[in-house]
Amino acid sequence: MFVILVYDVNQSRVAKVLKLCRRYLYWVQNSVLEGELTEAGYKKLKYELSKIINKDEDSVIFYTFRSTKYSNREIMGLEKGGQENIL
Amino acid sequence: MFVILVYDVNQSRVAKVLKLCRRYLYWVQNSVLEGELTEAGYKKLKYELSKIINKDEDSVIFYTFRSTKYSNREIMGLEKGGQENIL
Repeated sequence: MFVILVYDVNQSRVAKVLKLCRRYLYWVQNSVLEGELTEAGYKKLKYELSKIINKDEDSVIFYTFRSTKYSNREIMGLEKGGQENIL
Repeated sequence: MFVILVYDVNQSRVAKVLKLCRRYLYWVQNSVLEGELTEAGYKKLKYELSKIINKDEDSVIFYTFRSTKYSNREIMGLEKGGQENIL
Protein backbone atom coordinates (compact mmCIF):
# COMPACT_ATOMS: atom_id res chain seq x y z
CA MET A 1 0.00 0.00 0.00
CA PHE A 2 1.03 3.60 -0.47
CA VAL A 3 1.45 5.56 2.75
CA ILE A 4 1.69 9.29 3.46
CA LEU A 5 2.80 9.95 7.03
CA VAL A 6 2.67 13.36 8.70
CA TYR A 7 3.89 13.90 12.23
CA ASP A 8 3.61 16.70 14.76
CA VAL A 9 5.62 15.64 17.78
CA ASN A 10 7.40 17.34 20.64
CA GLN A 11 10.78 18.75 19.60
CA SER A 12 12.53 16.33 21.96
CA ARG A 13 11.25 13.38 19.95
CA VAL A 14 11.53 14.69 16.39
CA ALA A 15 14.96 13.20 15.66
CA LYS A 16 13.97 9.78 16.94
CA VAL A 17 10.65 9.76 15.09
CA LEU A 18 12.23 10.92 11.84
CA LYS A 19 15.02 8.36 12.07
CA LEU A 20 12.52 5.54 12.57
CA CYS A 21 10.21 6.71 9.80
CA ARG A 22 13.08 7.02 7.34
CA ARG A 23 13.80 3.34 7.76
CA TYR A 24 10.39 2.69 6.20
CA LEU A 25 9.51 5.71 4.06
CA TYR A 26 11.04 8.52 2.03
CA TRP A 27 11.31 11.93 3.56
CA VAL A 28 9.42 14.42 1.41
CA GLN A 29 9.21 17.71 3.26
CA ASN A 30 9.25 19.13 6.76
CA SER A 31 7.31 16.54 8.76
CA VAL A 32 6.02 14.48 5.83
CA LEU A 33 7.17 11.10 4.54
CA GLU A 34 5.75 8.78 1.93
CA GLY A 35 6.33 5.42 0.35
CA GLU A 36 5.17 1.94 -0.46
CA LEU A 37 4.75 -0.48 2.47
CA THR A 38 3.53 -4.01 2.91
CA GLU A 39 0.74 -4.60 5.42
CA ALA A 40 3.36 -6.15 7.74
CA GLY A 41 5.74 -3.21 7.31
CA TYR A 42 2.93 -0.78 8.06
CA LYS A 43 2.03 -2.63 11.25
CA LYS A 44 5.67 -2.78 12.32
CA LEU A 45 6.17 0.94 11.73
CA LYS A 46 3.05 1.76 13.77
CA TYR A 47 4.16 -0.52 16.58
CA GLU A 48 7.64 0.99 16.76
CA LEU A 49 6.26 4.52 16.57
CA SER A 50 3.80 3.82 19.36
CA LYS A 51 6.74 3.04 21.62
CA ILE A 52 8.47 6.34 20.85
CA ILE A 53 5.72 8.94 20.83
CA ASN A 54 3.78 10.39 23.73
CA LYS A 55 0.14 9.93 22.84
CA ASP A 56 -0.93 12.82 25.06
CA GLU A 57 1.34 15.30 23.29
CA ASP A 58 2.19 14.01 19.82
CA SER A 59 0.18 13.34 16.72
CA VAL A 60 0.97 11.11 13.74
CA ILE A 61 -1.42 10.72 10.82
CA PHE A 62 -1.20 7.86 8.33
CA TYR A 63 -3.01 8.19 5.02
CA THR A 64 -3.04 4.81 3.32
CA PHE A 65 -4.03 4.04 -0.24
CA ARG A 66 -4.58 0.63 -1.72
CA SER A 67 -4.41 2.09 -5.20
CA THR A 68 -2.69 5.22 -6.41
CA LYS A 69 -4.26 4.97 -9.85
CA TYR A 70 -6.34 8.09 -9.39
CA SER A 71 -3.79 10.04 -7.44
CA ASN A 72 -1.55 12.89 -8.35
CA ARG A 73 1.14 14.82 -6.56
CA GLU A 74 1.92 18.39 -7.48
CA ILE A 75 4.67 20.52 -6.01
CA MET A 76 4.76 24.28 -5.87
CA GLY A 77 8.15 25.76 -5.08
CA LEU A 78 11.04 23.64 -3.88
CA GLU A 79 11.35 19.87 -4.07
CA LYS A 80 12.95 19.40 -0.66
CA GLY A 81 13.61 15.70 -0.40
CA GLY A 82 12.64 12.16 -1.20
CA GLN A 83 11.91 10.67 -4.58
CA GLU A 84 10.36 12.62 -7.38
CA ASN A 85 7.19 11.36 -9.01
CA ILE A 86 6.73 8.59 -6.51
CA LEU A 87 2.98 8.53 -7.08
CA MET B 1 -11.53 15.94 -5.66
CA PHE B 2 -9.99 15.22 -2.30
CA VAL B 3 -6.86 17.23 -1.51
CA ILE B 4 -4.15 16.83 1.10
CA LEU B 5 -1.93 19.89 1.26
CA VAL B 6 1.37 20.04 3.15
CA TYR B 7 3.44 23.20 3.33
CA ASP B 8 6.95 24.02 4.42
CA VAL B 9 7.34 27.77 4.10
CA ASN B 10 9.47 30.47 5.66
CA GLN B 11 8.24 31.48 9.12
CA SER B 12 7.46 34.98 7.84
CA ARG B 13 4.84 33.57 5.46
CA VAL B 14 3.29 30.81 7.60
CA ALA B 15 0.38 32.91 8.92
CA LYS B 16 -0.55 34.18 5.46
CA VAL B 17 -0.31 30.72 3.86
CA LEU B 18 -2.31 29.09 6.63
CA LYS B 19 -5.01 31.77 6.51
CA LEU B 20 -5.41 31.33 2.76
CA CYS B 21 -5.42 27.53 2.89
CA ARG B 22 -8.04 27.52 5.65
CA ARG B 23 -10.43 29.32 3.34
CA TYR B 24 -10.36 26.21 1.16
CA LEU B 25 -9.41 23.27 3.36
CA TYR B 26 -9.59 21.98 6.93
CA TRP B 27 -6.54 22.28 9.09
CA VAL B 28 -5.51 18.84 10.27
CA GLN B 29 -2.16 19.08 11.98
CA ASN B 30 0.96 21.21 12.04
CA SER B 31 1.42 22.15 8.37
CA VAL B 32 -1.20 19.80 6.91
CA LEU B 33 -4.67 20.58 5.59
CA GLU B 34 -7.19 18.47 3.75
CA GLY B 35 -10.60 18.65 2.18
CA GLU B 36 -12.83 18.34 -0.84
CA LEU B 37 -12.33 20.84 -3.66
CA THR B 38 -13.78 21.40 -7.09
CA GLU B 39 -11.34 21.60 -10.00
CA ALA B 40 -11.99 25.35 -10.10
CA GLY B 41 -11.42 25.73 -6.35
CA TYR B 42 -8.18 23.78 -6.61
CA LYS B 43 -6.91 26.03 -9.41
CA LYS B 44 -7.91 29.15 -7.50
CA LEU B 45 -6.13 27.99 -4.35
CA LYS B 46 -2.97 27.24 -6.33
CA TYR B 47 -3.10 30.61 -8.06
CA GLU B 48 -3.53 32.51 -4.80
CA LEU B 49 -0.81 30.49 -3.09
CA SER B 50 1.59 31.13 -5.95
CA LYS B 51 1.28 34.84 -5.27
CA ILE B 52 2.14 34.43 -1.59
CA ILE B 53 4.97 31.93 -1.48
CA ASN B 54 8.58 32.36 -2.49
CA LYS B 55 9.29 29.53 -4.91
CA ASP B 56 13.01 29.60 -4.14
CA GLU B 57 12.48 29.09 -0.41
CA ASP B 58 9.08 27.53 0.17
CA SER B 59 7.53 24.20 -0.71
CA VAL B 60 3.88 23.20 -0.96
CA ILE B 61 2.80 19.71 -1.94
CA PHE B 62 -0.69 18.89 -3.14
CA TYR B 63 -1.82 15.27 -3.12
CA THR B 64 -5.03 14.99 -5.09
CA PHE B 65 -7.39 12.04 -5.27
CA ARG B 66 -10.25 11.60 -7.64
CA SER B 67 -11.63 8.83 -5.46
CA THR B 68 -11.14 8.18 -1.76
CA LYS B 69 -12.82 4.76 -1.96
CA TYR B 70 -9.61 2.89 -1.23
CA SER B 71 -8.24 5.34 1.25
CA ASN B 72 -7.96 5.32 4.95
CA ARG B 73 -6.75 7.77 7.56
CA GLU B 74 -5.42 6.58 10.87
CA ILE B 75 -4.33 8.79 13.73
CA MET B 76 -1.87 7.87 16.46
CA GLY B 77 -1.91 10.16 19.45
CA LEU B 78 -3.72 13.47 19.44
CA GLU B 79 -6.38 14.60 17.01
CA LYS B 80 -5.20 18.18 16.73
CA GLY B 81 -7.67 19.85 14.42
CA GLY B 82 -10.05 19.70 11.49
CA GLN B 83 -12.82 17.22 10.93
CA GLU B 84 -12.71 13.69 12.11
CA ASN B 85 -13.13 10.87 9.65
CA ILE B 86 -13.09 13.17 6.69
CA LEU B 87 -11.90 10.39 4.39
